[in-house]
Amino acid sequence: MLIKSRLFTPGPTPLLPSAQLAMAAADIHHRTADFRTLYSRVLADVQTFVGTKNDVVMFASSGTGAMEASVSNLTSPGDKVLVVTAGKFGERWTQLAQAYGCNVEVVSAEYGKTVTPEQVKAKLSQDVKVVYMQATESSTGVRHDVEAIAALLKNTDTLLVVDAITGLGTTHFDVDGWGIDVIIGGSQKAVMIPPGLAYLAVSERAWKRMESAKNPRFYFDLRKERKNAAKGESSYTPAIALIAALASAMDFIRNMGKGDLAAGRVALVDNAEMCAEMMREAALALKMKLFAPDAPSAAVTSIIPPAGVDSTKIVKLFRDEFGAVISNGQGDEMKGKIFRMAHLGYFDYMDTIATVGALEQVLGIISLPKHVEFGYGLKAAQEVYARVAGSARNAKAVVSNP
Amino acid sequence: MLIKSRLFTPGPTPLLPSAQLAMAAADIHHRTADFRTLYSRVLADVQTFVGTKNDVVMFASSGTGAMEASVSNLTSPGDKVLVVTAGKFGERWTQLAQAYGCNVEVVSAEYGKTVTPEQVKAKLSQDVKVVYMQATESSTGVRHDVEAIAALLKNTDTLLVVDAITGLGTTHFDVDGWGIDVIIGGSQKAVMIPPGLAYLAVSERAWKRMESAKNPRFYFDLRKERKNAAKGESSYTPAIALIAALASAMDFIRNMGKGDLAAGRVALVDNAEMCAEMMREAALALKMKLFAPDAPSAAVTSIIPPAGVDSTKIVKLFRDEFGAVISNGQGDEMKGKIFRMAHLGYFDYMDTIATVGALEQVLGIISLPKHVEFGYGLKAAQEVYARVAGSARNAKAVVSNP
Repeated sequence: MLIKSRLFTPGPTPLLPSAQLAMAAADIHHRTADFRTLYSRVLADVQTFVGTKNDVVMFASSGTGAMEASVSNLTSPGDKVLVVTAGKFGERWTQLAQAYGCNVEVVSAEYGKTVTPEQVKAKLSQDVKVVYMQATESSTGVRHDVEAIAALLKNTDTLLVVDAITGLGTTHFDVDGWGIDVIIGGSQKAVMIPPGLAYLAVSERAWKRMESAKNPRFYFDLRKERKNAAKGESSYTPAIALIAALASAMDFIRNMGKGDLAAGRVALVDNAEMCAEMMREAALALKMKLFAPDAPSAAVTSIIPPAGVDSTKIVKLFRDEFGAVISNGQGDEMKGKIFRMAHLGYFDYMDTIATVGALEQVLGIISLPKHVEFGYGLKAAQEVYARVAGSARNAKAVVSNP
Repeated sequence: MLIKSRLFTPGPTPLLPSAQLAMAAADIHHRTADFRTLYSRVLADVQTFVGTKNDVVMFASSGTGAMEASVSNLTSPGDKVLVVTAGKFGERWTQLAQAYGCNVEVVSAEYGKTVTPEQVKAKLSQDVKVVYMQATESSTGVRHDVEAIAALLKNTDTLLVVDAITGLGTTHFDVDGWGIDVIIGGSQKAVMIPPGLAYLAVSERAWKRMESAKNPRFYFDLRKERKNAAKGESSYTPAIALIAALASAMDFIRNMGKGDLAAGRVALVDNAEMCAEMMREAALALKMKLFAPDAPSAAVTSIIPPAGVDSTKIVKLFRDEFGAVISNGQGDEMKGKIFRMAHLGYFDYMDTIATVGALEQVLGIISLPKHVEFGYGLKAAQEVYARVAGSARNAKAVVSNP
């Protein structure tokens, strides 16, 4: 049978075709007016996409590079920082802060749960210089309450750094209103292009902190990058093709918002929310349990396989039968225990319904759970779509018939 | 919401990504050794794909160009020819043969039905020079019995010309065994590349007939093209990018056959048969009727909408809600009465289940037929896949456990 290759992973995500073409055509030099025009436009668009007035800087790096930048630029050895963690990416904050000699306090929740604002509050004190957290922890599929945690830091000198690498485009943020000092995104996520670019939006008080922060930095020097970005330049050779692709992706999101990039961002988040809800309802109808039922992210849905089934088998069947790459549990503790399916970026209704169909078939090969038939998961997903799209149609009808 | 553009039309069909890249990179000149190597390879591959030892020629034209070639090269004014017709493409044969001054006999069936071999037999006589027919009539979704009609012409001087533009890659043929003198294919069909190329495989007795055929031809002169093709050349400027794309598509089909292009062709046909069966069972489960229930083609499924529903509305909802282009009935008589969904070429299980899901949603917006719920069509489609894929797995298991 014909089998297409498809990614349903929380990064890399499926590529936007127009961005692929832009990438293929990106035959320009980075010390030219052409590039400066392109780069200035992309930086401004990303600022709108993030939804902030803060300056944006960008690196040719993975998201981890931008995470490192927000440690090395904002801390000095011995600084007390608080890491909010409930999964593999939270743990990365701890490793990073330790690598730079910080005095790391950790506030954690078990995998699949979210850290509550109360837990964070209990650990806060005047001497905490920075709080590091994820918006969505894609290793477990949980969403943290960024707004509530940000509210705890209002009128304090503690900075808030949010890794929103899988959060941007899947979660609504009011970056400036809530007071997120650094928010981090990556290219291979909701913006639908390949890995290799990371970006940060940085608040004025974070820029000010850098003046006294003593940790060493060179490639990831945010202030140097900001100065060059203002001229449409990057400090070192930029990932030109990815920047051209990102420009194209921003245009696509702008089109989703009918010419308004901020509206397009909202539509992209709503789309991910809908796809995620389809998947969650399907999983429940197929008598499986969600791994993060209380605060599920729209970036990725984590599902616990039926009793006695290793999720590695489910991942393998998806690949072998349908050419579809889904994610296993991340790390030795989680591998085999959950499987994860992404909704961030270039996924639509048809992709999602197809994934639910494939999930039913995969379960069918292993053996469908008791009292489950083909179509149960699909029906549940269909009802979500009909409700969400029906509401959107009604809302539109109201607007056009006032 | 995010909506991807998708084609579910019986041509153009979705493009194969590797072929798109090959097309984009096809920066070669056609009077060079590079091109001759490429073209010779493509012609040989197409011969294998068609499944014949007959010589293949190719034109920069739509499929109709190749249809015209098989009239202008094989007939003289006044020749009696028999056209087998049950739809718009059958009618095109009549128009073509009349344009070249042939004395056209027609044997027809109403739209949605197939012409029986008995009907053809009744119209045959020694003075019929050529029988023209379709393998699959994509305006109605019917499949003709090429094998049985070919059998009627064995040991006669009547040539058989089969427009298999939507038939190749969706129907099993034994071109040489059955005695098909000319079989015609097009690029924008099961071979997964854009429109602009047509190809024909021509038998020895057809080549011989051309010596006496008196109708005028120049661009579509088959013998001139054959002579040049033998040297890896085309008579006039070839559609270079499409030829490069076709080379890539042949590689893809070869990979489907694990290195064997003929096996890949069989797999491609089986895939289309499975997708078509999924769609037919879904339509029936959704209480709709098939327009060509007796001899449905695997290229395209024609469905009669629920009573009182204009198919134009269904086509429009597919487009507006899901970015999916499906086909209306073709021509004034059929528009509004049926809708058509394609399975030829680059479609897989996930595409098909997604299309069934979208069909349920479209019906839901109009209003689901009585006693139908979300999931009924999907369940029926799931059962087809589980049975077909299950059999294939069992067959493989038997081979590897002898």
